[in-house]
Amino acid sequence: MKLVRFGKFGSEKPGLIDADGNVRDLSGVVSDIAGDVLGRESLERLRAIDPASLPMAPAGERLGACVGSVGNFIAVGLNYADHAAESGMPVPAEPVLFNKAPSCIGGPDDTILIPRGSERTDWEVELAVVIGSRATYVSEAEALDYVAGYCICNDISERSYQLDRGGQWTKGKGCPTFGPLGPWLVTTDEIDASDLAMSLSVNGERVQHGSTATMVFKVPFLVHYISQFMILEPGDVITTGTPPGVGMGMKPPRFLKTGDRMEVSIDGLGTQRQSVAQG
Amino acid sequence: MKLVRFGKFGSEKPGLIDADGNVRDLSGVVSDIAGDVLGRESLERLRAIDPASLPMAPAGERLGACVGSVGNFIAVGLNYADHAAESGMPVPAEPVLFNKAPSCIGGPDDTILIPRGSERTDWEVELAVVIGSRATYVSEAEALDYVAGYCICNDISERSYQLDRGGQWTKGKGCPTFGPLGPWLVTTDEIDASDLAMSLSVNGERVQHGSTATMVFKVPFLVHYISQFMILEPGDVITTGTPPGVGMGMKPPRFLKTGDRMEVSIDGLGTQRQSVAQG
Repeated sequence: MKLVRFGKFGSEKPGLIDADGNVRDLSGVVSDIAGDVLGRESLERLRAIDPASLPMAPAGERLGACVGSVGNFIAVGLNYADHAAESGMPVPAEPVLFNKAPSCIGGPDDTILIPRGSERTDWEVELAVVIGSRATYVSEAEALDYVAGYCICNDISERSYQLDRGGQWTKGKGCPTFGPLGPWLVTTDEIDASDLAMSLSVNGERVQHGSTATMVFKVPFLVHYISQFMILEPGDVITTGTPPGVGMGMKPPRFLKTGDRMEVSIDGLGTQRQSVAQG
Repeated sequence: MKLVRFGKFGSEKPGLIDADGNVRDLSGVVSDIAGDVLGRESLERLRAIDPASLPMAPAGERLGACVGSVGNFIAVGLNYADHAAESGMPVPAEPVLFNKAPSCIGGPDDTILIPRGSERTDWEVELAVVIGSRATYVSEAEALDYVAGYCICNDISERSYQLDRGGQWTKGKGCPTFGPLGPWLVTTDEIDASDLAMSLSVNGERVQHGSTATMVFKVPFLVHYISQFMILEPGDVITTGTPPGVGMGMKPPRFLKTGDRMEVSIDGLGTQRQSVAQG
């Protein structure tokens, strides 16, 4: 099942993608793709609906982030060995965790804004995990039971804010528009996230490509691990790190500028298309 | 105005404290002390209500966190020069920011749980700022216009998780029950937060005392500063750092254990009283 949210920013309606790729309106069934709607039984109820029985969403509607009311937007750093190398940092012994501000979340094709004063705004294609039910102290074996599904996250990052402004990474990770999620939330019954090709291009040039197969810490371990430190709630999002090819790692380094266009893809999870403007 | 939330965890009702210190029930007026209810005009409407016209809350009800649906729980590190010294870290040139998981938020007198496997759970009395309206790129001069009010936060911290588990502090800051907020949200018209005495005692022994007057970066600057990096939304909470006297800085270091009792006070913002148990 591919779940979406469509409509204007801040007032998105829930929907799903039918067999022909159309957006069907779920707002008569659930209020949002968020919180408890992401639980196992709730998703089974949605799955039992014949999409053809749902109204079509208006054509050409904007897609919003595929999950609403995200309470905690957690990110994993340096989770691909070759990306750690290009960042000049060692592969961590255990996952590096930091946070993106939930207020940075946007739709998959929303314009990315370069923060005022930024000179080093960068891209990162990532597999994001959407939590389906409350998880605390869960085992690795049970961890996927707590996951609703997956989506793409372009973990946009301001490298100076992240690395040169005082020790913790959060300043460079949550700027406005830095967290596009979607286009779809693909539920775990429909996709195995353990070996998905991923890529990111800037102005038609492919700069990142890789596979979730080379993640250092895999999704079940990450959910287990994070749940030892904090309660994961339905609708929380964990973005799991990026493969090599970020601008910071290029020689010379290359960063986003006004007018750039990105395409961000993960097999089975769709494609994001973003243009870049000054914030 | 002193705003509160009362009732069982997860289903708290909004209330306010009347002139006699009683909790009055605001649930006929607003749905929660959260989000847009914290905006300037909304608070003015609440202020215009005669508390005596509101029903009394049932006697002896638990107080919950004084703000609900917190979207971003931001913390400032090393914001008192003498606490930085006891932590063995330099006073930062600009604010250090990190995140506490919103799922760690609890009521002012809820039991604090030592995480499983923890050996270094510590206390930190802090002034917390509750955002009242959306703030992005705001000036220092205007910053207080975006603040709804203040409350106490005991920024409970697991020092090994914070400092020895992989670079970023977030693992040691958001464990379940690590973010008691309250008892009251005191609105900015009622209190000047620039010189408030603060203290924390463990088992009756005062271990922390100080004043918000010795903060390195003051509240208006912090709101301005953070808003350059991320959008602050109504109901976001910024906890602003702790004065000296944390367990980690004692010689020998001292940490919380089952059965300990804390009292956490800031002048004008009330007192939290917590017991400690194993999680």
